[in-house]
Amino acid sequence: MNTNEFEISRPVLVGDTADIHLHRALSILRSEGVNPDVVMEFTAGRDAVLCGVAEAKALLNRVLPEHGREVFALPEGTHVSKGEVVLRVRAPYASFGLYETAICGTLASCSGWATAARECVDAAGTIPVACVGARYVHPSVAGLLDYSAVSGGKCATGSSVLGGRLAGHTPTGTMPHALVLLLGDTVRALAAFDKHMPPEVPRVALVDTMRDEVEESLEVAKSLRDKLRGVRLETPEERGGVTPDLVKELRARLDQAGYNHVEIHVGGDMTPELIKLFVASKAPVAGFAVSRYVAGAQPVPFSADVKEISGKNVARRGRIPGLAQNPRLARVA
Amino acid sequence: MNTNEFEISRPVLVGDTADIHLHRALSILRSEGVNPDVVMEFTAGRDAVLCGVAEAKALLNRVLPEHGREVFALPEGTHVSKGEVVLRVRAPYASFGLYETAICGTLASCSGWATAARECVDAAGTIPVACVGARYVHPSVAGLLDYSAVSGGKCATGSSVLGGRLAGHTPTGTMPHALVLLLGDTVRALAAFDKHMPPEVPRVALVDTMRDEVEESLEVAKSLRDKLRGVRLETPEERGGVTPDLVKELRARLDQAGYNHVEIHVGGDMTPELIKLFVASKAPVAGFAVSRYVAGAQPVPFSADVKEISGKNVARRGRIPGLAQNPRLARVA
Amino acid sequence: MNTNEFEISRPVLVGDTADIHLHRALSILRSEGVNPDVVMEFTAGRDAVLCGVAEAKALLNRVLPEHGREVFALPEGTHVSKGEVVLRVRAPYASFGLYETAICGTLASCSGWATAARECVDAAGTIPVACVGARYVHPSVAGLLDYSAVSGGKCATGSSVLGGRLAGHTPTGTMPHALVLLLGDTVRALAAFDKHMPPEVPRVALVDTMRDEVEESLEVAKSLRDKLRGVRLETPEERGGVTPDLVKELRARLDQAGYNHVEIHVGGDMTPELIKLFVASKAPVAGFAVSRYVAGAQPVPFSADVKEISGKNVARRGRIPGLAQNPRLARVA
Amino acid sequence: MNTNEFEISRPVLVGDTADIHLHRALSILRSEGVNPDVVMEFTAGRDAVLCGVAEAKALLNRVLPEHGREVFALPEGTHVSKGEVVLRVRAPYASFGLYETAICGTLASCSGWATAARECVDAAGTIPVACVGARYVHPSVAGLLDYSAVSGGKCATGSSVLGGRLAGHTPTGTMPHALVLLLGDTVRALAAFDKHMPPEVPRVALVDTMRDEVEESLEVAKSLRDKLRGVRLETPEERGGVTPDLVKELRARLDQAGYNHVEIHVGGDMTPELIKLFVASKAPVAGFAVSRYVAGAQPVPFSADVKEISGKNVARRGRIPGLAQNPRLARVA
Amino acid sequence: MNTNEFEISRPVLVGDTADIHLHRALSILRSEGVNPDVVMEFTAGRDAVLCGVAEAKALLNRVLPEHGREVFALPEGTHVSKGEVVLRVRAPYASFGLYETAICGTLASCSGWATAARECVDAAGTIPVACVGARYVHPSVAGLLDYSAVSGGKCATGSSVLGGRLAGHTPTGTMPHALVLLLGDTVRALAAFDKHMPPEVPRVALVDTMRDEVEESLEVAKSLRDKLRGVRLETPEERGGVTPDLVKELRARLDQAGYNHVEIHVGGDMTPELIKLFVASKAPVAGFAVSRYVAGAQPVPFSADVKEISGKNVARRGRIPGLAQNPRLARVA
Amino acid sequence: MNTNEFEISRPVLVGDTADIHLHRALSILRSEGVNPDVVMEFTAGRDAVLCGVAEAKALLNRVLPEHGREVFALPEGTHVSKGEVVLRVRAPYASFGLYETAICGTLASCSGWATAARECVDAAGTIPVACVGARYVHPSVAGLLDYSAVSGGKCATGSSVLGGRLAGHTPTGTMPHALVLLLGDTVRALAAFDKHMPPEVPRVALVDTMRDEVEESLEVAKSLRDKLRGVRLETPEERGGVTPDLVKELRARLDQAGYNHVEIHVGGDMTPELIKLFVASKAPVAGFAVSRYVAGAQPVPFSADVKEISGKNVARRGRIPGLAQNPRLARVA
Repeated sequence: MNTNEFEISRPVLVGDTADIHLHRALSILRSEGVNPDVVMEFTAGRDAVLCGVAEAKALLNRVLPEHGREVFALPEGTHVSKGEVVLRVRAPYASFGLYETAICGTLASCSGWATAARECVDAAGTIPVACVGARYVHPSVAGLLDYSAVSGGKCATGSSVLGGRLAGHTPTGTMPHALVLLLGDTVRALAAFDKHMPPEVPRVALVDTMRDEVEESLEVAKSLRDKLRGVRLETPEERGGVTPDLVKELRARLDQAGYNHVEIHVGGDMTPELIKLFVASKAPVAGFAVSRYVAGAQPVPFSADVKEISGKNVARRGRIPGLAQNPRLARVA
Repeated sequence: MNTNEFEISRPVLVGDTADIHLHRALSILRSEGVNPDVVMEFTAGRDAVLCGVAEAKALLNRVLPEHGREVFALPEGTHVSKGEVVLRVRAPYASFGLYETAICGTLASCSGWATAARECVDAAGTIPVACVGARYVHPSVAGLLDYSAVSGGKCATGSSVLGGRLAGHTPTGTMPHALVLLLGDTVRALAAFDKHMPPEVPRVALVDTMRDEVEESLEVAKSLRDKLRGVRLETPEERGGVTPDLVKELRARLDQAGYNHVEIHVGGDMTPELIKLFVASKAPVAGFAVSRYVAGAQPVPFSADVKEISGKNVARRGRIPGLAQNPRLARVA
Repeated sequence: MNTNEFEISRPVLVGDTADIHLHRALSILRSEGVNPDVVMEFTAGRDAVLCGVAEAKALLNRVLPEHGREVFALPEGTHVSKGEVVLRVRAPYASFGLYETAICGTLASCSGWATAARECVDAAGTIPVACVGARYVHPSVAGLLDYSAVSGGKCATGSSVLGGRLAGHTPTGTMPHALVLLLGDTVRALAAFDKHMPPEVPRVALVDTMRDEVEESLEVAKSLRDKLRGVRLETPEERGGVTPDLVKELRARLDQAGYNHVEIHVGGDMTPELIKLFVASKAPVAGFAVSRYVAGAQPVPFSADVKEISGKNVARRGRIPGLAQNPRLARVA
Repeated sequence: MNTNEFEISRPVLVGDTADIHLHRALSILRSEGVNPDVVMEFTAGRDAVLCGVAEAKALLNRVLPEHGREVFALPEGTHVSKGEVVLRVRAPYASFGLYETAICGTLASCSGWATAARECVDAAGTIPVACVGARYVHPSVAGLLDYSAVSGGKCATGSSVLGGRLAGHTPTGTMPHALVLLLGDTVRALAAFDKHMPPEVPRVALVDTMRDEVEESLEVAKSLRDKLRGVRLETPEERGGVTPDLVKELRARLDQAGYNHVEIHVGGDMTPELIKLFVASKAPVAGFAVSRYVAGAQPVPFSADVKEISGKNVARRGRIPGLAQNPRLARVA
Repeated sequence: MNTNEFEISRPVLVGDTADIHLHRALSILRSEGVNPDVVMEFTAGRDAVLCGVAEAKALLNRVLPEHGREVFALPEGTHVSKGEVVLRVRAPYASFGLYETAICGTLASCSGWATAARECVDAAGTIPVACVGARYVHPSVAGLLDYSAVSGGKCATGSSVLGGRLAGHTPTGTMPHALVLLLGDTVRALAAFDKHMPPEVPRVALVDTMRDEVEESLEVAKSLRDKLRGVRLETPEERGGVTPDLVKELRARLDQAGYNHVEIHVGGDMTPELIKLFVASKAPVAGFAVSRYVAGAQPVPFSADVKEISGKNVARRGRIPGLAQNPRLARVA
Repeated sequence: MNTNEFEISRPVLVGDTADIHLHRALSILRSEGVNPDVVMEFTAGRDAVLCGVAEAKALLNRVLPEHGREVFALPEGTHVSKGEVVLRVRAPYASFGLYETAICGTLASCSGWATAARECVDAAGTIPVACVGARYVHPSVAGLLDYSAVSGGKCATGSSVLGGRLAGHTPTGTMPHALVLLLGDTVRALAAFDKHMPPEVPRVALVDTMRDEVEESLEVAKSLRDKLRGVRLETPEERGGVTPDLVKELRARLDQAGYNHVEIHVGGDMTPELIKLFVASKAPVAGFAVSRYVAGAQPVPFSADVKEISGKNVARRGRIPGLAQNPRLARVA
């Protein structure tokens, strides 16, 4: 993808989202007439899947002077280790010092989501995983959650419109429980879905709104027959959640009724451990949906350290002065 | 504060941040000519401090029809229990169905941050707590993090410019390590700070950039004397972090040198457990700063359920049809 | 109850169920002409609810000589402590030595079941508990299981015909899943039940055979109306088991449909911990059924020690010679 | 062995040990004139060593019609997995529906005992294991305990007369402590034993009744010399139980006194873990005796499900309709 | 007691036991002509019972100049807290700097032993405790172990000759197993003991050398009758160790034989936890003996810090300059 | 080394450090005229590195008669197993019975220290380890601690003068914090050290007395340049202790300043686990110093058993009579 797709918002550009001490520092340095070329390194605080570096580059492209700047980075989606430098910027301090908060924050959130998503994807093996966690994060970052889960975490898709645009995929979704309730039952809701949705939208029914999941599945299969692509199980915790045994029973009853073509998708609060359980039990799952595990991922801490000032190695106490060794870094600006 | 302060962004309003299945559902219902009055309830999935409800109201105010709508809510900062309804909306479904993702997400993120912040504040007792976690979240929500920590979590301040504007406080901050490195040492950095900053900005020095924390503290106290408000300890993990014993030693050495007026602030990766340790050991701390614990808080899950359609009680399987009992809900629109 | 109700079977009386070393010992003693009066004490190996002592007395009544014998015992259902003597027999050794295995075994099994049942009953507070564990023990002891659960454990009822006869209660039961399957659906099965069963048998429907529990409950309530006494939930583990939330939802939906009189019974693999969870969550349960927890209870070990021979205190190494102090023992024969 | 050896008792045959709901179901079906051919499958609820199937077959042989019935089963002593069908019956429902409780209970108890016994036998490697747990179960099942431990669990012997008859072995036993106390000391008891017991009964002395185990062992060895087969250690818990060091010391002292031919048997509350400890420490044990671990084994839960009615696949919700795949099942009736 | 009793050995006085860096430091300071008055404080590194301070004072009395010195200390046996100053010395550095290792080491070992002993004594309540751990420490400190256990730890006695002299008590002891083996049996050994030992030595028999403890106890009681003061149980681990049940059985059998006057002492590897077990079980113990728990106690770390030089507050980094507050310190020299 | 180096002190020789029961036993045996040749074996109570056997031999050489005695032993520093005989003495009992306490105690303390030291040495791999724990043990055994750590534990050196003499090495040490405080700062202290110490004493500076460790290191390196051998880090717990990251930062800053020759030594409370952490993190450590872990090691329990009297096998109950098999034992006297 193209880093130009990341529009940097005005509040970020004017520093409204920055820590106030950065504003003060820049004002003091300006008053003192101090603005040397510095090298700042951004270092991962734990093992992670790196994400957000594309947006960070887009921001730096907007604010750094065209000449004299140097930006080195690792690619989006790279596995990084604790202590590894993932981004290095050489430029006059005043040109980018204000954005330390934004760059660290972008990397922290996006890498957190990407890392959690990748754990789910790794657990699922060859079975595709969709990220449907938008409802667990503030809408300002819902698109980025999906972008991170897909671009960094290797999920097959996300669920938000914006996430699809950022990561270049078609978002996925079945139908809300509200649609079933408003149209009165699952069969009628699916009929309306089939009637009004363009043919490229897969017919996947939500089958736990009114009745037993197996009963609803058989009813929608009977009504839509070959046009039914699949069903999605989202049994709520109050009813025991989705279990491998439920998937197996549903598969058996669908097959016995001649609906071998109907896929079974598993949603709800999947975690890597749960996904592994389904995979180990050989439950015939066509796709997993993950939400809270990814949306609630711990941010990955990144530190930003000035390591060189006007060509001289420096570092705050506790860090090693001078540039870190990382042959994987490639110049990107 | 005034809910009008929350500007709802264009992507939210046009539904770019919504789950795609909501777009599809609305399109189907429109085609079917179905748009009854419904009641939707938003229910907390765990015990929490509620936050984000002000922004949710601002969104509903923008999109619901003026007449016939009813919105009931609990106030920002309320302690809510698992299973408690915090927001109830009665309106034609088509007027707000698209915003289910955004409302759940706003409540999830903001309540998560507020809850974690409140734990820290409760642990600190009478000692003020500042939220300086902006660098651990994407800049699009950095201001909301601080808003939630202050309005919901009862922190004294945040660190971002925007957070201060949203929650109505002056953000806090000392100086970045970069300033010290660029000006060469802590004393010189603090002198420049003192020279250029307006008098209302407290002079609080960061004292671990170059040397031992105690040594730097005594040096800055000697150079700024009565003008020095305090010092902030942020000893990195590589150097053992901040400990109660360090605070006590620093206090003793400052007092012996006649700097009893200099406050000691403790930063770094504070958690409720660590704060309790400092409080229990009677270390003389003037203020705590929290960051990652709050910024990385688990989102609070909220479910959105249609409970009434055209005056008739309904519910998806697993939920109880009809309005929940919650006498604490007050009509807000 | 009357100890005469316990018929002692022929294999027990002829010693077929005894350890072979007792046969040998009696044969040796007979050859040696040794048969003094002895006192044997039966001591509990852990804290327990005592049960089986009625049957033990029935056995001793059959085999001890009418004159000269002395039997002391604690009553059925007593809480006993580790190390407490629960039964003391004074008689010529040859008259009862063979039955040491049988008496210890009777006390062990029955006290184990009674103790486990009492834990469930205590957990349930005022809610009645039925023992339906017969299918987890060999049929030769199924009646005794129910007897122990009711007489010792204070369960309200058992499920086996024989248990009812032994403990003097009417056994409880709804209907097997097989009946529903054979008659085709739950409503039809309940109609047949209502038609053919005498009026004193409560109409309690099993509601998870074909469909969602709530759906089936509403259907049977609609069909049998006031004649329906209650429903029993036995959701299998494969479907998440019975949860407090399911009970609450079902109660709400029954009430909303006007079936406030229909009781909800909870079956399946209840344990004291699960029962406490239901009670703590205030789920409106009318009765609990316990099975595997009681049927699989650890036997309570009892030791049988000769403590006096011809009036002289003795004991094997590791035990204290002479009669133990236990003022609670009362003479029963 | 021959399944004819299992006599089915009258209470089982008339259904006194059955759950009352089975009586009711049969009465209803009779009134409704419903009695189709069904297939019922019995499925193991956990990994286990199967036992009790011989008795179940004996029961079915008694009650099923000669013609048209089909019974498939796994052999006694088979290792079965959770979810595996171990017994399948095809017959008119009315001919065997009443015995569901009895069949499940027989399999549950016997498989529980067999599984626990097999764990001990596996732990002991080449050292034989005897089951002497009769005193921990009700006498009605004492023989079955020994039968299950030997036939299913591969113990060398049991201790009850009836168990020996059922499983076709000579029961084992030394002498009760009571014999030693009644005859005054261990040497005199053993002399009497030797005098009166037929030569084929091995002379194994119990050596902890009066004195130190080593002292008593040396005394009995001295008195019986070559006729002494072995000694059994049953040191009670109050005296520290039997330890590998005790066995080694006893072996050394017996050998030093020239009694190398005297075997050392270890009794008491052996468990697989304890047995492994003895084996790992190379203590020279000639045989282990197990009791409470086997007698108190958890029953193995078995479910009985109607899977076919008049040739049509069915199943209760939560189970898969139709016959399960299990190529190991063999037709036995 | 009198601190003069502690003779300071020549190797300590000449500094052979000191860390070599102290020798070097003193040599350097002498060459530089630096020898100011300093205050050195010795601080406890964990909560403990203080011991060794008497010996430390004896050392300081030997080496400090008569005039101008000041020594403050807490009394032997005081409960001290982590971070508490227990000893303060003001004198010219050269007069005592060499002894820092010796003073810290004395306090560390003695306080470690005293603390562990006090835990045992506290656990035993009113039952006296003897320290018999000399065989677990090097003989150079065996007397000090007993001194610390008695003077600091409040044990009733120790077992070594020197410990008795230091702490002013008569050491305790029964007889070695070797004596019994050499004289052939316990009764003969006790007879010889009674014949040759002065009357003030209590006749306490060791009763587990040859036979069962109870058997040997009854034999020695029978032979020595009223002259027997008690028996000591030291059953080795190989035979299950000493248990409360063994004590109770022995008490009962002694009483039944008319030897109510014979005390039961419990030795072996007692710990505070085991002692509490005996006390809680109300086993009639007349005295406990502790050994390895006390002898193997962790040393209590003490730090020695120069806090004042020529009247000026100082401290190494990490410590607070100047004298600590401790009103409990009293001037002792 | 030569066992003659171990002088046996007068209190040991006259039995002042012995358990009083040994004095009594010898007095009784003398009165009875009993003094046979016996074999006593000393057996290890846990796996350990044997130490103290040289001193035990020195003691036996002093006290045993020249003729007729036999002493077998394992060499100092041998890995021994639980239950292994490490020393066997054949001599008239009266000639050495009194020294059982001293021999057991010597082996217990020395083997405890040697075992703990060896664990540290094994953890450190090729990096040398120094024992500087003298301040945690009573001065009477400080030299033996170092001897055991070096001779048995394979440490490179100890810190006490006497330890060096016993084990034949030059003790190690830098400088006490007191020296730095008395001379005013680290640079001045090191200059004085360099001026007055003979050239063979390595110049290793303690660098955490006044300031940050890195700052002090760079200052001393600058002042002493090539003469500086290394620095020792002993950051106190109050300041976070020594961490691998601190070592790495210091190494980097020393190297960047051109002081690649300056070694970094790590002191403080090292344990095998911490040492492994440093080794695993590849922190460039030139040497470790261990103290409390070794000084506070659990003594290794040794039992002393008479196994033969006048050529006849004997043993107390719980032990096996006669000589144990141990082909590793070699005759040493």
